[in-house]
Amino acid sequence: MEFSAQQIAAALGGQVEGNAEEKISFFSKIEEGRPGSLTFLANPKYKEYIYSTQASVVLVNEDFVAEKPISATLVRVKNSYSALAQLLSIADQFMNPKKKGIDSLACISPSAKIGKDAYIGPFAVIGDNVTIGDGAQIYPHAYIGDNVKIGNNVTLYSHATIYKNCLVGNNVIIHAGAVVGSDGFGFAPDANGVYQKIPQLGNVVIEDDVEIGSNTCIDRSSMDGHTTLHKGVKLDNLIQIAHNVTVGENTVMAAQTGIAGSTHIGKRCMFGGQSGIVGHINVCDDTVMAARAALSSNIKEPTALQGNPAFKASQYQRSYVIFKKLPEMMKQMNEMAKEIEALKAKLSE
Amino acid sequence: MEFSAQQIAAALGGQVEGNAEEKISFFSKIEEGRPGSLTFLANPKYKEYIYSTQASVVLVNEDFVAEKPISATLVRVKNSYSALAQLLSIADQFMNPKKKGIDSLACISPSAKIGKDAYIGPFAVIGDNVTIGDGAQIYPHAYIGDNVKIGNNVTLYSHATIYKNCLVGNNVIIHAGAVVGSDGFGFAPDANGVYQKIPQLGNVVIEDDVEIGSNTCIDRSSMDGHTTLHKGVKLDNLIQIAHNVTVGENTVMAAQTGIAGSTHIGKRCMFGGQSGIVGHINVCDDTVMAARAALSSNIKEPTALQGNPAFKASQYQRSYVIFKKLPEMMKQMNEMAKEIEALKAKLSE
Amino acid sequence: MEFSAQQIAAALGGQVEGNAEEKISFFSKIEEGRPGSLTFLANPKYKEYIYSTQASVVLVNEDFVAEKPISATLVRVKNSYSALAQLLSIADQFMNPKKKGIDSLACISPSAKIGKDAYIGPFAVIGDNVTIGDGAQIYPHAYIGDNVKIGNNVTLYSHATIYKNCLVGNNVIIHAGAVVGSDGFGFAPDANGVYQKIPQLGNVVIEDDVEIGSNTCIDRSSMDGHTTLHKGVKLDNLIQIAHNVTVGENTVMAAQTGIAGSTHIGKRCMFGGQSGIVGHINVCDDTVMAARAALSSNIKEPTALQGNPAFKASQYQRSYVIFKKLPEMMKQMNEMAKEIEALKAKLSE
Repeated sequence: MEFSAQQIAAALGGQVEGNAEEKISFFSKIEEGRPGSLTFLANPKYKEYIYSTQASVVLVNEDFVAEKPISATLVRVKNSYSALAQLLSIADQFMNPKKKGIDSLACISPSAKIGKDAYIGPFAVIGDNVTIGDGAQIYPHAYIGDNVKIGNNVTLYSHATIYKNCLVGNNVIIHAGAVVGSDGFGFAPDANGVYQKIPQLGNVVIEDDVEIGSNTCIDRSSMDGHTTLHKGVKLDNLIQIAHNVTVGENTVMAAQTGIAGSTHIGKRCMFGGQSGIVGHINVCDDTVMAARAALSSNIKEPTALQGNPAFKASQYQRSYVIFKKLPEMMKQMNEMAKEIEALKAKLSE
Repeated sequence: MEFSAQQIAAALGGQVEGNAEEKISFFSKIEEGRPGSLTFLANPKYKEYIYSTQASVVLVNEDFVAEKPISATLVRVKNSYSALAQLLSIADQFMNPKKKGIDSLACISPSAKIGKDAYIGPFAVIGDNVTIGDGAQIYPHAYIGDNVKIGNNVTLYSHATIYKNCLVGNNVIIHAGAVVGSDGFGFAPDANGVYQKIPQLGNVVIEDDVEIGSNTCIDRSSMDGHTTLHKGVKLDNLIQIAHNVTVGENTVMAAQTGIAGSTHIGKRCMFGGQSGIVGHINVCDDTVMAARAALSSNIKEPTALQGNPAFKASQYQRSYVIFKKLPEMMKQMNEMAKEIEALKAKLSE
Repeated sequence: MEFSAQQIAAALGGQVEGNAEEKISFFSKIEEGRPGSLTFLANPKYKEYIYSTQASVVLVNEDFVAEKPISATLVRVKNSYSALAQLLSIADQFMNPKKKGIDSLACISPSAKIGKDAYIGPFAVIGDNVTIGDGAQIYPHAYIGDNVKIGNNVTLYSHATIYKNCLVGNNVIIHAGAVVGSDGFGFAPDANGVYQKIPQLGNVVIEDDVEIGSNTCIDRSSMDGHTTLHKGVKLDNLIQIAHNVTVGENTVMAAQTGIAGSTHIGKRCMFGGQSGIVGHINVCDDTVMAARAALSSNIKEPTALQGNPAFKASQYQRSYVIFKKLPEMMKQMNEMAKEIEALKAKLSE
């Protein structure tokens, strides 16, 4: 399918600057733009590419000021990244229409209730007393344990597992191989150092608009209470969320992050990849952790953190600059020590 | 179901202090205790909560001395955490009865032998010459390769994979998505830097009472010998155990830890989350690694380790305190250098 | 099966030294060699074991010079490790013959095309318009989404997932639970901090001779372009490759490594376990990262890296030696400060 710059501007409520009849049929990145594609400029870091891009149409923010001539047609919009997301969503609906129908090879308990317009793929398993809302996309091999409740418009990709008794809200996406509700890591050592399992009797609650990446693991709570991902949380791949953790609304975590048991995380936090947090602490709203940060104490006001253990990122970076020079610093100190000795000798002459 | 403090004390061989007729029907954490629940006090960190908890009954150690009045009924037992584990086990058996029966949608090789009282869920695959003991709980989509031998009372959750020829003991629990026996990472580079695969002909041996978390991976050994998890090992989620590793009895590892090839780990070790160990080293019994520790040399006597590379944790922490002050230290040193220059100038006047 | 030293030398084009009739029937490591086994000496670190090994036959490099008598029979070859790989490959073909036949319990779209000599296990799912080359080994529960194209001699183990539209070359091995083509982690925050999903419309391209470990995740590209693993790349278990990353030919990564979005990695790089790279950077050919290194800037010439952020490994190690002594260094500096004060006092007397 092809669209003109004019059609795109109309759909987005934007203004065309240049050839309104310019046609595009695919998306590209500004630095790799090809003729016939639409791209966007949001990150100022990429500004220089707008003057050389081969893309036919570029979405820019309303207040963008060109410093040189631009050969592409511009479409000015309030927020170019959001506008792009909107266009991609439309494209996505065309390119990836929802699947429909309940496959005869799915295994669905007679006591399960499934809403309308659902897709249930072959070899999916849906346990006893499960409830699934409308518009579900349950891919092949997904496993939904007994008594699980799932809202509307939820997608479970292949090999996603939800253990029994867990609750999942509306518009949740769970990617392939993710595990929701496995046992928390709880053991009581006896006098001989042998570990006795503490049964994990709780569950996981996933609120609306959460997305969970591939092979990410979220353990069920140990007894009373829940492991909870609040509304709008986005987790990347291979993340570990231990038992009894709560993650506040709209907090996002990059891949391979791990949160130990009973830690409570605020809203709108952003955690870089491979970061980690110990158990039993509180992390306030709007906390930021650099990739690989390892937090081991409560955070009471919004801070950007780095290091192991993590402290203020700007201070970590200052200390690290000197860490890199430690051998020279040691050498200088040894020279100073000699000079002091020389001064002492001279003074006692 | 409801139980009285008296019934609980009788079951645990403990002593009631307070209202023996107090009734409980669920478990809670002491800091979030609600009326009608049973909780426990084990970690002295939580001691203060016993005076304010709303829980109806609290398990405490025999030697607990109250410093203020307590409104809850106490049940004194030898070890409150073990006693709780015991009660949770009983509750677990009521709440989560074992599943039974071999589903007609399971795919079981005619040459496989399965013990009594087994549950084999839909779409489970059991290969040729597999042996499984009594009381197995094999969830949907579990995959058991050819010639695998599995003991009694073993649970495999959904999407657990056991590659061929591996051995699994009694009372082992393997969580969803865990992989046992995939190929070790072995390649021989040729003169052009192209890697030739070294076939991995060994297997994995998992002894009794081991628990393996979700999406954890344990590679098969390369040739002679086994990758071995000895009796009572507990692995959390997303852990990597490379080929030819051995892990000693009752060693526990928190999530996202990784052990490189051919490393031998002793008994009763405790590894924090996201820790790691290089290949081809020996780690003695009772070694402790802090979260995120990265060990790269043999450990010959029990030590608590931290850092990258890891050394004595207490020393790491002392060094890290100064790392955080390095900018000030550098500043101080530069001032001292100036003072030395001033002294030298004064002396040569 | 048994082979004589003479037969092995003939197969490898090598020379026997010792009893040419010596028989072997299995492989062993040199330090654990048992009678009747074949072992090899490649790593000079293990040289001492050749004088004491109980193995019957040892593969050694042509230029090996014995310093003491050796009881085992030697087979001299050009490259002992490659020769071993060759023997293991032959043994592998005997011990692990390819599986054959399309199981009646597999679910294969009528529009899919499958080459000859394929094995498709029970409960495997093969989507619409999929093409699979000759000699495929598709294990139970593997999932291949719509429009995926797969080359010849590809192995997908149990629970491997390939999302739609991805391309896989020849001789690729994908281990259990690995996920190829899940959505990249792309969200646009609105003014309220609520994240809007950016649909991920691209795919993953895996070239020939790639191996992907268990539970490793490779996200699809966001729009134009591909996430690409070039020819001969080897990824261990639990690795994260984010959207739009490219990995150059014959680059190898150990377990739990993570590469953030849009980073481009050169050829023949070697990354240790648990290492990581931020997004949007370029890493040149032949870069080496120590285990746990965290790279955050472009690398323009081949370097061995360590630390967080990573810099030259040899410098990191020198700095770290002093990091361990920081408390003493601080103490020494404080003493020097006192001595300076004493000198100043003395001079102003």
